[in-house]
Amino acid sequence: MNEQPYRLGMIGLGTVGSGVLELLHRRESTLVRRLGRAIEVKKIAVRDTSRSRPYLSGFGEISDLLTDNPDEILEDPEIDLLVEVAGGVDEPRKWILKALENGKDVVTANKAVLAVHGKDIFQTALSQNQRVFYEASVAAAIPIIEMLQNGLIANGITSLSAILNGTCNFILTQMEEEGLDYETALKLAQEKGFAEADPTLDVSGGDAAHKLALLAGIITGSHVPIECIYSEGIQEITSSDFTFARDLGYAIKMVGTLKQHGTGAWEMRVHPTLVPENDLLAQARDEYNAVSLVGDAVGRMSVMGKGAGSLPTASSIVADVLRASRGEREGGNPHGLNVPELVPVGDVELPHYIRLEVKDNPGVLGRITSFFGMHNISIRSINQPEAQMGHTVPVIIITHTCKDKILTDGLEELKKAGLVEQGFTHIRIQE
Amino acid sequence: MNEQPYRLGMIGLGTVGSGVLELLHRRESTLVRRLGRAIEVKKIAVRDTSRSRPYLSGFGEISDLLTDNPDEILEDPEIDLLVEVAGGVDEPRKWILKALENGKDVVTANKAVLAVHGKDIFQTALSQNQRVFYEASVAAAIPIIEMLQNGLIANGITSLSAILNGTCNFILTQMEEEGLDYETALKLAQEKGFAEADPTLDVSGGDAAHKLALLAGIITGSHVPIECIYSEGIQEITSSDFTFARDLGYAIKMVGTLKQHGTGAWEMRVHPTLVPENDLLAQARDEYNAVSLVGDAVGRMSVMGKGAGSLPTASSIVADVLRASRGEREGGNPHGLNVPELVPVGDVELPHYIRLEVKDNPGVLGRITSFFGMHNISIRSINQPEAQMGHTVPVIIITHTCKDKILTDGLEELKKAGLVEQGFTHIRIQE
Repeated sequence: MNEQPYRLGMIGLGTVGSGVLELLHRRESTLVRRLGRAIEVKKIAVRDTSRSRPYLSGFGEISDLLTDNPDEILEDPEIDLLVEVAGGVDEPRKWILKALENGKDVVTANKAVLAVHGKDIFQTALSQNQRVFYEASVAAAIPIIEMLQNGLIANGITSLSAILNGTCNFILTQMEEEGLDYETALKLAQEKGFAEADPTLDVSGGDAAHKLALLAGIITGSHVPIECIYSEGIQEITSSDFTFARDLGYAIKMVGTLKQHGTGAWEMRVHPTLVPENDLLAQARDEYNAVSLVGDAVGRMSVMGKGAGSLPTASSIVADVLRASRGEREGGNPHGLNVPELVPVGDVELPHYIRLEVKDNPGVLGRITSFFGMHNISIRSINQPEAQMGHTVPVIIITHTCKDKILTDGLEELKKAGLVEQGFTHIRIQE
Repeated sequence: MNEQPYRLGMIGLGTVGSGVLELLHRRESTLVRRLGRAIEVKKIAVRDTSRSRPYLSGFGEISDLLTDNPDEILEDPEIDLLVEVAGGVDEPRKWILKALENGKDVVTANKAVLAVHGKDIFQTALSQNQRVFYEASVAAAIPIIEMLQNGLIANGITSLSAILNGTCNFILTQMEEEGLDYETALKLAQEKGFAEADPTLDVSGGDAAHKLALLAGIITGSHVPIECIYSEGIQEITSSDFTFARDLGYAIKMVGTLKQHGTGAWEMRVHPTLVPENDLLAQARDEYNAVSLVGDAVGRMSVMGKGAGSLPTASSIVADVLRASRGEREGGNPHGLNVPELVPVGDVELPHYIRLEVKDNPGVLGRITSFFGMHNISIRSINQPEAQMGHTVPVIIITHTCKDKILTDGLEELKKAGLVEQGFTHIRIQE
């Protein structure tokens, strides 16, 4: 038994930070047994030390640990590890860099700071011979990073598709199951605490792109800047799309995809996707996340778990504290600083779902199919579920596999040609 | 960079052993980068060194490594790790104990030797301060042991249900999807190499019980002898049961279950189970395995992957070699030697599916429902899908939640009462 405890300082004490305290307390004896020494929380930096924190009453007197000066952690030579759970981008960047420079490892749940300033942070970690662990930043409870780095170490990963944003998944689940429209579902997500007052980062795909960039970095052994990830949001999906998709055997999910081509280059994209309803990703409801990957030794493997919440997120932070405290070599920092070769989204080949609103006139379907044919887009099926001569009705088109650029250019032309009454929905289909 | 390579000796060079060689070769540069030193296979013990092994031609000259004397590995002080992939029970026990006594760690894919001689083996490992890693022995490719020991370290696991036997799952999938009867599906499994010439250990539930005992040991931090696991085989399921189950919204799977009661005692059981068709376990087809668990921090988490095959199994062995070579403290050996308190299967409360064959006479359903009522078994639904007066027809009964002993005693009485024509199927239902 090592007499010296392993000492951490935490910045932030919101819903995730208090979850970390709770789990360190609850699992104390297991952690001591596994580590051979105690884990001690030495300091916690918060904005306002005087704020009442009744939800921490179960953990004894913690007010002695509080400080409003992060430097008391970052400059304390006795502290082995910084746990950063404050959120934000610019301040966390400063804290993390300073911790690394002062010889501390770092555990963070902050995907934004890693996706935006990852190059800086990982370069500093490499040069300082420190590690940055970030299990909780991707798919909260799911230990996908440890799986990729340890359990699946014998595999080259050739593709991955994942639901990585709990807010989008909650909204899409409500639209699908309750028939809500997008605005109502968003409002409900905000009321339940699953969406921010400004939900842009989540619903635009930005947050999922941050997370996918982190997974891509591990899988390709590179640095993947956020700009590498093509992304589209969920804002244009209507509740009727769920009905049409279900009739065709699909769910609509916000999916992040990584896929290696024979050339070695990678597709990296986040967008709404029609997923076959028997696919594991289609089973992930509400705030659940899911990851399905193909390894060249294991074949397909899938994992599903909660993608948000205090204890699910804290669970992964505590696992990272264990990894850090064991001195796991290189575990959290496999990034080289090269950027992988990319396949432009325009070259991606997939089938597509398109919902058009057209005036129901004789010959309208003929004109649409001719138009698609002229633009080299091959149609697998075309359905006009409602007939109402002279009125605007939806037409649902499923294409065969088609180059993304050909499809999107074709849709632009279609808009210009005045064949459709209003905007339309275009959703890529996962094969 | 440490100059000294990490040296392993392997006993066995069948389908799994050659997969291990292939993956160590394929992932050499990644493993060196992660470890800071090379992994060297120093000796391989096989029964017959002269046998031609053309499938190894890709890995250079290995005949120099071969020996027919395992002691050349077990007594070589330069060898750090024994990888045991020979199969069997008595010989592997001897090899593993000798390796531990001679200061080597052990990686094995052999659930049988651990389930039968685990107490011996784990006690020796503890006293010798060595570790035994066995990721590949449970759910082949799925890194469930590392998840439980590391990624989910912050969780008490309160329940787990899993498909752990690829042979059973292949047979049940063929019966469900192709309408094959049990004997034909078994023969197909044997032809495809998914079942042994003597399939007893697999189809009886014995193999799944071995694996469940290992997971139970990790989850409860105890030693769980194989006798603790109640098990039933799949031999009495008929293809018609799949039809009736599907009509009720269920799949039939061979499921291993661990469940902690409020008292702290555990249900531990392996038997055919009706699983709701939207449950992840119902999605695992053919040789896939799946594990669904509830942690007190993460809530529900599920993982699915291949449960058999050369590379999927070797993938987990290589991950264990990495764990062993990093000197992970206690990682593979969390077992205390106490036995956890058990809930007898007779006290387990579940709903049940019962298929009876009865002579279709007026009043027969009335007599059956009265009989069940008299025996305190409450019926949720009773269906007689075929009516053919005077002929033997099936009756499908779904009970409400009912103590196992009351149900099984009732069924014994029913047999004696002569109300049913032939044997019947009784399958427990997962809630």
